[in-house]
Amino acid sequence: MTNGGCLTDVPGIRVGHHQRRGNGWRTGTTVALLPAGTIGGIDVRGGGPGTRDTDLLRPTATMDVVHAVCLTGGSAYGLAAAGGVMRHLEAKAIGFKVGPGTHDVVPIVPSAVIFDLGRGGAFGRRPDESFGERAARAARATPSPLGAVGAGTGARARGLQGGVGTASVTLANGVVVSALAVVNAAGCVIDPSTGLPWMPGRVVLRRPVAAEREAVRRHMESAVPPLNTTIGIVATTAALTKAECSKFASVAHDGLARAVRPVHSLLDGDTIFGLSTGRDELGSLENAAGDGLPPQRSRIVWLNAVLEAGAACFAAACTDAIVHAVSTGGDPSYRDLCPSAYPRAFPSAK
Amino acid sequence: MTNGGCLTDVPGIRVGHHQRRGNGWRTGTTVALLPAGTIGGIDVRGGGPGTRDTDLLRPTATMDVVHAVCLTGGSAYGLAAAGGVMRHLEAKAIGFKVGPGTHDVVPIVPSAVIFDLGRGGAFGRRPDESFGERAARAARATPSPLGAVGAGTGARARGLQGGVGTASVTLANGVVVSALAVVNAAGCVIDPSTGLPWMPGRVVLRRPVAAEREAVRRHMESAVPPLNTTIGIVATTAALTKAECSKFASVAHDGLARAVRPVHSLLDGDTIFGLSTGRDELGSLENAAGDGLPPQRSRIVWLNAVLEAGAACFAAACTDAIVHAVSTGGDPSYRDLCPSAYPRAFPSAK
Repeated sequence: MTNGGCLTDVPGIRVGHHQRRGNGWRTGTTVALLPAGTIGGIDVRGGGPGTRDTDLLRPTATMDVVHAVCLTGGSAYGLAAAGGVMRHLEAKAIGFKVGPGTHDVVPIVPSAVIFDLGRGGAFGRRPDESFGERAARAARATPSPLGAVGAGTGARARGLQGGVGTASVTLANGVVVSALAVVNAAGCVIDPSTGLPWMPGRVVLRRPVAAEREAVRRHMESAVPPLNTTIGIVATTAALTKAECSKFASVAHDGLARAVRPVHSLLDGDTIFGLSTGRDELGSLENAAGDGLPPQRSRIVWLNAVLEAGAACFAAACTDAIVHAVSTGGDPSYRDLCPSAYPRAFPSAK
Repeated sequence: MTNGGCLTDVPGIRVGHHQRRGNGWRTGTTVALLPAGTIGGIDVRGGGPGTRDTDLLRPTATMDVVHAVCLTGGSAYGLAAAGGVMRHLEAKAIGFKVGPGTHDVVPIVPSAVIFDLGRGGAFGRRPDESFGERAARAARATPSPLGAVGAGTGARARGLQGGVGTASVTLANGVVVSALAVVNAAGCVIDPSTGLPWMPGRVVLRRPVAAEREAVRRHMESAVPPLNTTIGIVATTAALTKAECSKFASVAHDGLARAVRPVHSLLDGDTIFGLSTGRDELGSLENAAGDGLPPQRSRIVWLNAVLEAGAACFAAACTDAIVHAVSTGGDPSYRDLCPSAYPRAFPSAK
């Protein structure tokens, strides 16, 4: 369903990471800078979320544009990182205009956190404003690394090294849908009965040998689900309304439910942002498609395709986060436990 | 994960069906009558729901007890069936007390519908009050039939005969969790690549032979997703708050997302009710479990187990609805297309 790909396959989106490891550190921040006019929504489905500037994304709130999304470690403390992203955007005069001066702007930077406190050894080592600013400065439109980078640095998924994954797909009508996930789930990304991910990612894995299957099963069984969370983004070039952006985020949670089991528990903070850059009007595409449906119905059919693709991309992103993660200390990676699952050509772990 | 079982494995719940077939009819109603003091919540995740008396289930509304749940065919017209359930309960003086007379009650009967209009040949043949009353009168605590009965009579799942499925599980602490689903999904319950359900049900199926796999794949591919919906119930003996009942319903949608792909589209009315009969206090069970966690944390761990079991039961119920369905006309059943998947001992289709 997905073609590998990246969140940045939606033109105009740039992604940047900043992280620190060692000396008590094992955490980081991931930022998506968005093209002008991007509209956002949200669906929070975990029982213990940590978020900032998200109430304005609800359909009844006035603001609809979003300038960046900040995903970060540090639990609720890490929400400070969003301030650094705002500082970066303010300096570039990017934000909601509130005065006559060029820089009289308020950047809208909805944010969500994962719990990774103390995983590097020191409870107080967590992202601050500088992390957000550095991640924003590092943001590029080119494919960004997968695995234990940025907000995924200190992530853990049922005892395995967590990380960042991303995926995209292009629909038959040219609409691009993409996703980025930071997987820090209490649930399993790996099916204990097969030793393989529940859902496919970009790499075709082989069934690991029996001893490896047993090792990963035991390891996941022994890992007490702690405070955990999967957070992320789905984005599309399709022109969605603000309310549709929240629906887009909502259905992306189905991809999360397929890739991580169980999920959405009372101790997860599972949160997904839905973004539309508005490039492609679904209302005009319907004619090009010549599918014979009345315009309103045709738009719904395309919109459903966007929702479905969002779920598929989010699921693939969750899988790739774990498959590509290299241990940053404390938790073994999937690859450490199941090396035989990987193709020979897979880049060596660093 | 599930042990087969039924919604009625939660003591006090009784389930009844009423349906009509032939002479333009192909629809029905399923009712769950609930023990006194049952608390309810809801999560509506489809884009096109049809519901009645559901706003009072929201955490901020006053009413918390629920006397019955009515699931029915007939799209929004079918909501009339709830009136028949109310009449049945009023006659038994079951309801919210609003006056001095024994029968001065208002029964609380939250309801949801599936779209099956015209599937028996006549658009106007749909459930009315009599369907709800008869289904309520037929309600029993014993295992109820699976497949194309009650509200599942006219159900269709991506071109296959839909139906009613149910499942239950008993947790280590004695808490019972159960589910009932009416599957009328636009998405696939059968994985097109294997010809088997995405998620396991109570019957161990074999991979169908190649010609059957191809037949079911082609059939699902050719079936244009129409107006569709999966509706259902998760119930537990665990004492949940009203808000927790909605969370319970919410996580059950993860089971739906695993069993039906795609799901929650703009044309689905996917709605799940979450019910707690309150028999088992999770707060007291924690001591018996002797798990060494502080009381509040231990309650959350058990509650998470209830949520996870609800998702598992709902997924199994969706699968069993399709696996057990016998065609009621118009749509072939899964069994019609893939007979080789079934064990020899499987009861013959009638």
